[in-house]
Formats: sequence, structure tokens, C-alpha cells
Amino acid sequence: METITLEYSFSIDYQHQVFFSQAIFDPHNTILSSLLTNYNTLGTPKVLLVIDDQVIQKNPLLKSTIHQYFRSLSRKIAYCGLLEYPGGETLKNDLTHLKNLYKKIEEKKLCRHSFLIAVGGGALLDMVGFVATTAHRGILHIRIPTTSLSQGDGGVGVKNGINFLGKKNFIGGFSTPVAVINDSQFLETLSYPQLREGFIEALKVAIIRDAKFFQEIQNRVPALLRRDPPSIHWLIKKSAQHHIEHITKSADPFEKKSSRPLDFGHWIAHRLETLSGFVITHGQAVAIGMAVDVLYSSLIGYLPKADTKAILALITQLGFDTYHPKLIQKNRSGHYDILTGLEEFREHLGGTLSICLLREIGNPIEVDHMDQNLILQAIQSLKEPLNKWL
Amino acid sequence: METITLEYSFSIDYQHQVFFSQAIFDPHNTILSSLLTNYNTLGTPKVLLVIDDQVIQKNPLLKSTIHQYFRSLSRKIAYCGLLEYPGGETLKNDLTHLKNLYKKIEEKKLCRHSFLIAVGGGALLDMVGFVATTAHRGILHIRIPTTSLSQGDGGVGVKNGINFLGKKNFIGGFSTPVAVINDSQFLETLSYPQLREGFIEALKVAIIRDAKFFQEIQNRVPALLRRDPPSIHWLIKKSAQHHIEHITKSADPFEKKSSRPLDFGHWIAHRLETLSGFVITHGQAVAIGMAVDVLYSSLIGYLPKADTKAILALITQLGFDTYHPKLIQKNRSGHYDILTGLEEFREHLGGTLSICLLREIGNPIEVDHMDQNLILQAIQSLKEPLNKWL
Repeated sequence: METITLEYSFSIDYQHQVFFSQAIFDPHNTILSSLLTNYNTLGTPKVLLVIDDQVIQKNPLLKSTIHQYFRSLSRKIAYCGLLEYPGGETLKNDLTHLKNLYKKIEEKKLCRHSFLIAVGGGALLDMVGFVATTAHRGILHIRIPTTSLSQGDGGVGVKNGINFLGKKNFIGGFSTPVAVINDSQFLETLSYPQLREGFIEALKVAIIRDAKFFQEIQNRVPALLRRDPPSIHWLIKKSAQHHIEHITKSADPFEKKSSRPLDFGHWIAHRLETLSGFVITHGQAVAIGMAVDVLYSSLIGYLPKADTKAILALITQLGFDTYHPKLIQKNRSGHYDILTGLEEFREHLGGTLSICLLREIGNPIEVDHMDQNLILQAIQSLKEPLNKWL
Repeated sequence: METITLEYSFSIDYQHQVFFSQAIFDPHNTILSSLLTNYNTLGTPKVLLVIDDQVIQKNPLLKSTIHQYFRSLSRKIAYCGLLEYPGGETLKNDLTHLKNLYKKIEEKKLCRHSFLIAVGGGALLDMVGFVATTAHRGILHIRIPTTSLSQGDGGVGVKNGINFLGKKNFIGGFSTPVAVINDSQFLETLSYPQLREGFIEALKVAIIRDAKFFQEIQNRVPALLRRDPPSIHWLIKKSAQHHIEHITKSADPFEKKSSRPLDFGHWIAHRLETLSGFVITHGQAVAIGMAVDVLYSSLIGYLPKADTKAILALITQLGFDTYHPKLIQKNRSGHYDILTGLEEFREHLGGTLSICLLREIGNPIEVDHMDQNLILQAIQSLKEPLNKWL
């Protein structure tokens, strides 16, 4: 049997550009207009915006500001208008919104050199990012995250996705947008419970990557609690920076392998969110997930007691619970529901379990196994008053 | 206004591997089994197959051969069965098939380290490729093209897609499968009209890239017409090789720019296919499209008469028409329907027209404008007997 093999290698360069600015729809701010007019050398680019309705609610003047902004650019840019979609995870469940957005792209005759701009929280960015990556096999895309979580974490990354068959991000992809623009003014419209959703991911990245950043967060707790703008901007920017550096310098930006260190505390978090029917917020779920994995790291003798204490204290100071009754809920067969999360996480990674634990703050370690009794012991400790740890 | 810009660059290496073999589901042929067992080091990989029902019709024993093949590998591979989908472009129009395939992936619990294998013609490969690229943000994928067109052209490439809103490939992406395996036995089940669909794309790539290949095709015409297996295999392999080399060495494998030299003759071809309600096959449409652009290249003084003659003769010898009445059909406003193809192609490329014409065989040139009167003049010449050209 004669077999001929042809092998070809090629390499694609990706640029990932993130801007931190304020008032980006003010005509004096030229970041967005420069991107729109300099990227595309093929005449007047078409631009379609998609906005999270929760952002519009918090910023009643935003729509008219945006219309005005594009009126001021009308000689350079063909503005195709602004679509409002409901923000939040439910947007990603409903294929109607998805189909509707493809239809709008066709209706407005956007092409591969037109821009689709998404303004909103993580869910909206995920959905619009998926459409931008797949319509015409990819149209130009700009992300403008508006929540602390999306500005500091997911929104500055390279993933997109929609939910299908009840599975989060069952359908999705990886791509770099033309740019991400973080406008700090959006953060100032958020309540503390909304803000801390991003704080916990900042804390997570500090815990696994940067002990000095962790200390700085400790020092800034009072300022963060009183929503001090410079402290909030500093935290989110630093978090975003760590997040992007991790992705772009990890040698695996499009996650071909199984390791997922940025998912520290997330195997429990994903499970808790699902078990609670998404009543527990992502941030709160991550706080609990990290608390369990921190205690577990301590119980198996990896993490020194001082570090364990410091982390649990900081999670608590930021206003998060470190325990939820769902952690000890049993299913009909008498098994702990939470432990299924371990198996689901293994499936999600694809075959082999890889859990991020800690040796010390800023020094993570990957393990491929967790002892179920020790997990339950960690959970038990969190159920009791934390005094002995703090 | 303070603005901070963070810029990160990273680069992703892609390997594109294409095998040419025979009887790949014979247990003695180890290409597929090696790919399945060596790629995945995380235990027993799951494998789900999707097959074109037209292939099953032509190869009545194929299903049992495949089941037997995977039975022989049952200790190393978790075979999840075989799904049959209707082949041909209509598969890409119907979202039901798409959803159904995602559901099967979920049902069989395939993960990012499982394999989805597609066996079929270009349409089936496009649809399954899209699902493989987006389910779980990408599962492992192997393409086994079965038609001459897919083995020599689209199937060995990096594009995938489905149709939406009546637009071909409106939704899709770019990705490299783990491997493409061309099994020449499938070609031997095809009729001459089916085979020549691939021959014309081989001829196209010869015309734009390789004058020597063009001459060799001229010499092999009698053998190709009598379906001589070695000549068919030679032609398709050479065509595939040119196609892949063009993609992987073009510096733009994922088509970020506008140039699309492999689309020689295709602006008319796409339009003719649509105008005829896909009654005119892709191959026949490309034959006519090339004939027009060849004559046009000659009329504007680019292409020498000898080359023009040689190309038109070869297209005719392979059994293709060089004219169709749809070329002179007018719409209600009295405009030639075919000319709309130029505008559609511009939109497809995204903004700027880029048409591939010829200076000589093997020497293309890109232009950003075509004269409508000269196009109609070229069409008129093709309507008349070709004697003066041959």
C-alpha cells in the first residue's frame, strides 16, 4: 500500500491590544475613531454596535452620546446603528438573539472589513464575539467591556461562546478582537456587589501569580470597600494585565492542552453556579471555590497556615461568603452534588484532570487528583466559624 | 484624558497534514489508527464518524467495513458509531442537521480530545468542520474527502462553513484539522461527470500557478477521459498539493486580506450557480467563469492568443461547456444578471474588488476593476462557435 504524506507548517501572528481610557464616546477621545479609520484602508468602514440593555439602564445618556459620536465621524465612518440586547447569561441561551444578530449583519451588508462593536458585560461580549468570529468567517470586532468582571477578566481574553443544550459555552471559539477598550467610567456606575464580582478575579490572579499584588490588595481593602475610583481602576487594570499576560505568554493561548491555571477555584465555582440555578453569582461562587481549594492545599500540607489565613481573611474582607449550604447537598444516591464538579471539570478540560492548588501565595501547583474526603473536610472547616483561621 | 495602551503579540503554529493512500479502513492500513492513538495521550480517545449518504450509496460495504475496522481497534479507541447525513449543498442550508450533530456530540460526551471524523464531499466536510471547530471551542477533527473536488481542492483546505439566509458560507471559520486523508479508492467509484468536477479545479490551479502542470494535463487528456486510475490519482494529488501550498505559503492562510487568487474564474461561477438555482454544477460554472476571464484577459491585451486558445481547448476537451444562456440573461431593469456577480464578489472579499486575470499560463495578475463592456464582449465571443479560438 503506497502512502504519501505531505506536511505543511505555518504560523499566524496575533496582536492583542487593550486600551484603558475614559469617556471613549466623547469626540475628543480618539481611541475608537483611530481604530476604525486606520485599521481599514478600503474606504469608509461600516460600523454596527451591539449594547447590553443593563448598560443603557445605568447610563441613560449613552445612546444619544453614541449617536452623536458617530454623527461627528460621519464623513469617515458609515454608522449602521445600535442594537440593544438583554445582558446576562440568559442571552447566551437563546438562539433567537444569535440568529437575529446574523440577520442584522446581512441586512446592513457588513463584510469582512466592517466592524461589529460590542458594549456590555461578559455574556454579551461572548455572544457578539462568537457572531463576529463566524459571520463571513470573521468580521472586524472591537470589545468594550462594561463590568468589573469583563474589564478585568473574561472581556480582555480571547474566548467567545454561546450556551447550548444547557451547557455553558458548548459552542464557541478563540479569536483576538481588533482591540479591547476598557472605559473606567462604566465602573463608576456599578454598585459594590457588582464591583466585587471583578475584585474576586483580581484576587484570584494575585493569589496564583503575584504575591506583591496580593499585599497591595490587602492594603487597599478600605479604599475598595468605599468604591474609591483610583483604587478600583488600579485593581481592574492590574487584573486585566495579569490575565492578558497569562494568555499571551502561556504558549497555549487557544487552550489546546489541558492545563488551565487561570481556573483556580473554578471547578467548584462552575458546579455551585449550576446547582443554585445561577442564583449564586460567579464572583461569589469563585470566592467559595477558592476558599475550598485554599483549605485543601493547606490540609494536604502544601500551603503554609499564614498564607491560608491571609487568603481567607481577604476573601471575607471583600464581602464574600466562604461557604454555602449547596456545598453539602446530597443527590438521590446519597453522593455529594458538589463532587460531580470534579468529573465535569475533567470532561471540560478533556480527559485528564488538572487542578490548580497552592504552595504559597503566588506559587501554584497543578495536580491531577483530589482526595474526596479531604475536599469534604475542607468544606466542613468552612462551615464552622472561620475564627481559627483568621 | 489619560490613556494606557497594552499591546501583546503571540503566534500560533499550525500543522497541516495531508495523506494520500488507499483503503484506509482496511485494518492493515495504519494511517488512521496511528493518528487516533498517537495524537491523544490522555487514555482511550472517543471517535465519532459522520458519513455522506451519497458515499454510502456508492460504497454499499463501507459501513460494515468501518464497523469492522473500529472493532479491530476496540482496545485502543472508544468508537461512538457512525452518523449518516445527506451529502450535497442542501446539508449546509438546514440548521436541523447542524443542531442534531451538536446534540450527538453532547450525547456521546465527546470532549476537546475526542475525534470527529467526516467522510464525504465538500458540503459535508464544510458542515462537520464547522461543528468540530466550535463544539467545546474545538474538538479534534479528521477530514476524509471522497469526491474529486474535495480531494483536490476544498477538502484539503482550512475553511469550513454553513449557509444562512440563503448565502453560501455566511457562517463559518478557518481551522486546520488534525489531518486530511485522501483515499484514492473513493475516486474510482465516481462517474466521469463527477470526476471532472475536480479536474476543472486542477486545471484552474495549473493555469494560475504552473505552466508545466498545464502541459502535463494536456498530455493526459485521453487517459483522464477514459478514467485511467493512475492519471486520476496523479491529477488530484497534484491539484491538492498546489492548493495546500498556496494556502500555507501565501502568508495569509486565514484570508485576512482581500486577495483571493485561487478564486480565478469564480466571480462568474458563484453567480451562475445561484442564477441557475444550482442546476449548473460548480465545476461547469468554474469552467465557464474561467473561459470568460481568459477571453477578457486576451481582449485587454494581457494574455497571448496561443495561451488563450490552449486554455479554451483544454476546458472543452475535458467535456465542459464554455457558455451558458444565463450569461446573457437580463433582469427587470434591463441589466445583465451576470454582472451583479462582480459586485457580490467585491462584497464577499470585503470592500475592494480583486480579480485574478492572466498574463500567460502560470502567471496571474490581480486587477481591481473590470470593464463591463469587455466582459460582455468576451461572453459574446463564447456564445459563437469557438473555432476561431481553437
